[in-house]
Amino acid sequence: MQHKILLTGCRLATMAEGGEPYGLIKDGAVAIEAGRITWVGPRDDLPEEYSAYEVEDLEGRLVTPALIDCHTHLLFGGNRAREFEMRLNGASYEEIARSGGGIVSTVNATRAASDAVLIAGALKRLDHLIAEGVAVVEIKSGYGLTIKQEMRMLRLARQLETLRPVKIVTTWLAAHALPAEYEDRADSYIDEIAIAGMRHAAAEGLVDAVDGFCESIGFSPEQIARVFDAAKELGLPVKLHAEQLSDLKGALLVGEYGGLSADHLEYLAESDVPAFAQSGVIAVILPGAFYTLRETKLPPIEALRENNVPMAIATDCNPGSSPLSSILTAMNMASTQFAMTPEEVLAGVTRNAAQALGLAGDYGTLSAGVRAELAVWDADHPSELSYWIGGSPLFKRISAEPNR
Amino acid sequence: MQHKILLTGCRLATMAEGGEPYGLIKDGAVAIEAGRITWVGPRDDLPEEYSAYEVEDLEGRLVTPALIDCHTHLLFGGNRAREFEMRLNGASYEEIARSGGGIVSTVNATRAASDAVLIAGALKRLDHLIAEGVAVVEIKSGYGLTIKQEMRMLRLARQLETLRPVKIVTTWLAAHALPAEYEDRADSYIDEIAIAGMRHAAAEGLVDAVDGFCESIGFSPEQIARVFDAAKELGLPVKLHAEQLSDLKGALLVGEYGGLSADHLEYLAESDVPAFAQSGVIAVILPGAFYTLRETKLPPIEALRENNVPMAIATDCNPGSSPLSSILTAMNMASTQFAMTPEEVLAGVTRNAAQALGLAGDYGTLSAGVRAELAVWDADHPSELSYWIGGSPLFKRISAEPNR
Ligand SMILES: [Zn+2]
Ligand SMILES: [Zn+2]
Repeated sequence: MQHKILLTGCRLATMAEGGEPYGLIKDGAVAIEAGRITWVGPRDDLPEEYSAYEVEDLEGRLVTPALIDCHTHLLFGGNRAREFEMRLNGASYEEIARSGGGIVSTVNATRAASDAVLIAGALKRLDHLIAEGVAVVEIKSGYGLTIKQEMRMLRLARQLETLRPVKIVTTWLAAHALPAEYEDRADSYIDEIAIAGMRHAAAEGLVDAVDGFCESIGFSPEQIARVFDAAKELGLPVKLHAEQLSDLKGALLVGEYGGLSADHLEYLAESDVPAFAQSGVIAVILPGAFYTLRETKLPPIEALRENNVPMAIATDCNPGSSPLSSILTAMNMASTQFAMTPEEVLAGVTRNAAQALGLAGDYGTLSAGVRAELAVWDADHPSELSYWIGGSPLFKRISAEPNR
Repeated sequence: MQHKILLTGCRLATMAEGGEPYGLIKDGAVAIEAGRITWVGPRDDLPEEYSAYEVEDLEGRLVTPALIDCHTHLLFGGNRAREFEMRLNGASYEEIARSGGGIVSTVNATRAASDAVLIAGALKRLDHLIAEGVAVVEIKSGYGLTIKQEMRMLRLARQLETLRPVKIVTTWLAAHALPAEYEDRADSYIDEIAIAGMRHAAAEGLVDAVDGFCESIGFSPEQIARVFDAAKELGLPVKLHAEQLSDLKGALLVGEYGGLSADHLEYLAESDVPAFAQSGVIAVILPGAFYTLRETKLPPIEALRENNVPMAIATDCNPGSSPLSSILTAMNMASTQFAMTPEEVLAGVTRNAAQALGLAGDYGTLSAGVRAELAVWDADHPSELSYWIGGSPLFKRISAEPNR
């Protein structure tokens, strides 16, 4: 897309803040040159200089920024369908663990899988997302749990970018679970794998950000703080699985490190929201895990809203607690389960998701200067994107880098 | 598909009762001739006579009966995304009604839409279902609410069958809501439209079954009984939207008429389940409406299970309470929300759904004599079908009538 294009005949949800809901422009135009948007506005206001661009008439369709899935564990071996079935047939957590279930089974399957098998599995899920207008996907490590396997996961995640027209953002999540070989030695695991491996992976340029699972069944805030200290030394931004099952004050910890996002947040105390808001950290809401786990504790959406915390939405695509590869379904779940408005939800997979990945200048809005990554929908109004469940109203994606 | 085909290299979930879970056959074969299955079993047991059939190797894939969506309102005008948005922005039921929302808005939009527009909208949703392996879809009237418009709905529903390789089953649901022109004259509406129209529609061959909405905000059991009496005269089977929001004993009423199914059932009393079980009526479970309405009262699944009531699952696809056009998502919702097992859920969209539509001999299992309507999946085990959310693992459908 090196030539000059002018999109017309479209309704734009620019997601610009401060004006109309959704930054809506009813009869809009978008000028694109050299892979970037150069002008956006009402068709009637189009400056003369753009009228020589090659016109593409979108016949009244809705245009939004391409969507962003800012929290996934997209790359993994095997699946946990049989465990899902055992649980529904009444098996206890212990029975499932004894039969080799739980995250251990995904770690074993991931370690055992060839590169080609892992790529093939990830591509299936990635293709679902792309068919729903997604142009940026964050992918975490965390099922390797050795330096070599964790690095392999991020290397393969990066490889997906060469196979599909999509930007992949990689996150080092060795502090996801404790592998059997480190049983009762969590601190050693943090030093020898999570931190030492991070240095290797960063040196190879594989790491965009660093994450951890801060929970009684994961790692303690102290252990996470050591991981974050090491990330800071390397100049890597941090984020955290925080307050999913209990309140360990992980969200505030991310704030102390000037991090990107705190993710899940069901158990974030309302009284902590004002301080969290001050930190500038994005709240990433993951309705797929809430739904799958039949969680009843709602994240403090109203407090986040009142304190103007930017909220992102993501699939959390993973084989255990969120086998969800549909960003549109995640959007519906955020509205249906958490009473987030369709506008909040769309901001959550565009503007705020870009911010959660540190990509605010390049993605997530329709505005002059950002990359030309757009989604064109067979829809009249952006509220339809979170209203329907099943199928994708995507007409097409327009991508700055179709041949990447 | 008039020639003789032998499917091999496949794992079969035959959904035959009494043997292995799912009626599973690990290395199976299916013989097909003249649009019907002539033999199903383990490959090793294949009788000599079928070895001359043209072999199609499915390379280890999973084969199930094609899926059946036995309760939908697939054909309608407009959508209710703006109402969805108003509600999430805090609008009350009254405010929504005053702004023209609710079922009235769908009735107005349906009446106003051209045939072509209604068909185009329905085809979008139908294509989602077909892409998920669905071969039979029930479609109800109920947004016309005049004789002419209700008949038009069923005529258009039938027309879909000529446009896609799918069987459409039509249901007369004039007793869905009371149109404004009959305000305070529900009994007259039942006589003049629901019953009189049914006779016209049946005479034109448009009606496979008769349904109603039995609820304080719908029609009373007495009014429904009058509709059912008229259906009985015409030899048409009945079914009912029953016990969705309150317990009016609609499920038992269906039983009194020897009907096909009672649908929703959240408020069915456990104490009524044994009597309901005796009636032989199928329980149709609609998890999409439960999910969308944030209902908390669970249908009495365990009592239904213990009393051996066959349970079907459907999307209830409709613009108000279940804007869901994914049978796979409905399956996941039934497992996740109602703790139905993946085997129960798959039976619910195959064997039991066929029974709910009176099609048990022709659809819903892999067995000698039924129509050759199969779904071939990129999956190892049938539990995966209700485990994943988003995307469709369908490899292809095999249909007795590809050119219908
Ligand atoms: Zn996660
Ligand atoms: Zn219904």
